Amino acid sequence: MVPTADKIRLINALSSTGIRRIEAVSFVSPRALPQMADAGAVLTGIERNPEVFYSALVPNRKGAEAAVDANADGMQVFIAATDSYNLKNVRKTVAESLNDVAEVAELGRDSGVPVEATISTSFGDPDEGDVAPQRVLELSRWMLDHGLGAISYGDTTGMATPRRVAELVEALSGHGLPGLDINMHFHDTRGTGLANVVTALQLGVDYFDAAVGGMGGSPFASEASGNIATEDLVHMLDDMGVATGVDLGALIAAADIAQGFVEGELPGKVLRAGPRAGGRGRPGVER
Amino acid sequence: MVPTADKIRLINALSSTGIRRIEAVSFVSPRALPQMADAGAVLTGIERNPEVFYSALVPNRKGAEAAVDANADGMQVFIAATDSYNLKNVRKTVAESLNDVAEVAELGRDSGVPVEATISTSFGDPDEGDVAPQRVLELSRWMLDHGLGAISYGDTTGMATPRRVAELVEALSGHGLPGLDINMHFHDTRGTGLANVVTALQLGVDYFDAAVGGMGGSPFASEASGNIATEDLVHMLDDMGVATGVDLGALIAAADIAQGFVEGELPGKVLRAGPRAGGRGRPGVER
Repeated sequence: MVPTADKIRLINALSSTGIRRIEAVSFVSPRALPQMADAGAVLTGIERNPEVFYSALVPNRKGAEAAVDANADGMQVFIAATDSYNLKNVRKTVAESLNDVAEVAELGRDSGVPVEATISTSFGDPDEGDVAPQRVLELSRWMLDHGLGAISYGDTTGMATPRRVAELVEALSGHGLPGLDINMHFHDTRGTGLANVVTALQLGVDYFDAAVGGMGGSPFASEASGNIATEDLVHMLDDMGVATGVDLGALIAAADIAQGFVEGELPGKVLRAGPRAGGRGRPGVER
Repeated sequence: MVPTADKIRLINALSSTGIRRIEAVSFVSPRALPQMADAGAVLTGIERNPEVFYSALVPNRKGAEAAVDANADGMQVFIAATDSYNLKNVRKTVAESLNDVAEVAELGRDSGVPVEATISTSFGDPDEGDVAPQRVLELSRWMLDHGLGAISYGDTTGMATPRRVAELVEALSGHGLPGLDINMHFHDTRGTGLANVVTALQLGVDYFDAAVGGMGGSPFASEASGNIATEDLVHMLDDMGVATGVDLGALIAAADIAQGFVEGELPGKVLRAGPRAGGRGRPGVER
């Protein structure tokens, strides 16, 4: 349980790094995830930087109503590409969850709050194995038809490799989905996180999800199965000359705040080793 | 201190994975690194698979003589691209160390044992910062002139990014070094290890160093600054359709042996999460 004031402190720190989009809170069932029960208090408690777009993860209409009430700038709905994973995650089939997505999309239109979607297990399902890009393409078309113009393709279980990324991007861009804004959401469970980013970048993708310090998966255990770390991503892109507008030093300072919330070390590597220029001067790391 | 019998057990396990080259031991000063004092006993104690090339790291003529005595198939000399790092590592300038390299090369010719070189800090030095590809090119030319046809470019301190990899490969391949066999040696200190591999692969490099379980840096501390993990590399290449001839299951079993030698978790990720197909069935990893 991270205190509300600490969550606010972290989001405020991230707001001054140059990052322009923060998925700040989740309006999920407080019974299922009591850690997130303070989402409204967090979103109304932060200092809003007018340059930053603050979104909220919402599973259904009820969550979306709470997000709109709390003045979220945007909402993120999610669905798995596979029934197996969707049933595990929200106890509904994909078809059943699409009704929830449609309701959130409608509420978003009515309230003027933009909605984006995440399709998890886009690169593989631990039970079903490989996921056909065609399946992800069909869900994407459905999303576009329902007014969701940006889709985050989630590698929820760390099964993406450069080959899978290329196959999905090629399927999406080769099949007439005009106006689709492709966002890649990688986990580093099997070490391929930044390799997948490089591959996607080469194919024209320029929108990536990442988590400060590499939190995620199980944020309260020191496991390396979280999202790619935002500071590791920015650090690599900086050296590649890809402009992010993010101040790496400020971002590492924010990751240090996140580190204070958990037992053990967060998986983010630049947080530990410092940037390649050696600017943080942590001794004993360079060998 | 890993017992000699355990080292032999690990190398024997690696020998049956399909890997064709193993840097098995280091003939370094037993006063400086008592952990390596049993190098001769290890190399003569293993079951030699005739399909595998067993090499030894040697810092100088004395180490090379011991390696030849122990029937090493090959020797690996090393030098840094920067004086700062070379002085820290062996208390000699690069120019002074080149004399050692020349002596080992001569001994290799005389004894018929092939010698390869590692140039560490090829992508950056923690004190000096960026290392000019031109500097690495000059050292490479010197190596070729002294009969060393394969060079491993070491990212000793984890400062390589796809941009630095591309710059070095382009400098090397664009400047007439015929017969040079480029080997990339990445560490995952800042998360870019496999991203660097993908970049190098695209530029035609097909020879990579890796360490079972991601050991290295400080093998007796659970830090993420070792080499890229062999099984993470093979796992990614397998899914990309790049033939390695290595049996991933057997390799993970070897990494499990290595895991038994150290406190804490080795940094290798596939060792922990299992291959993407989910074949190892470790529960609770996939989220």
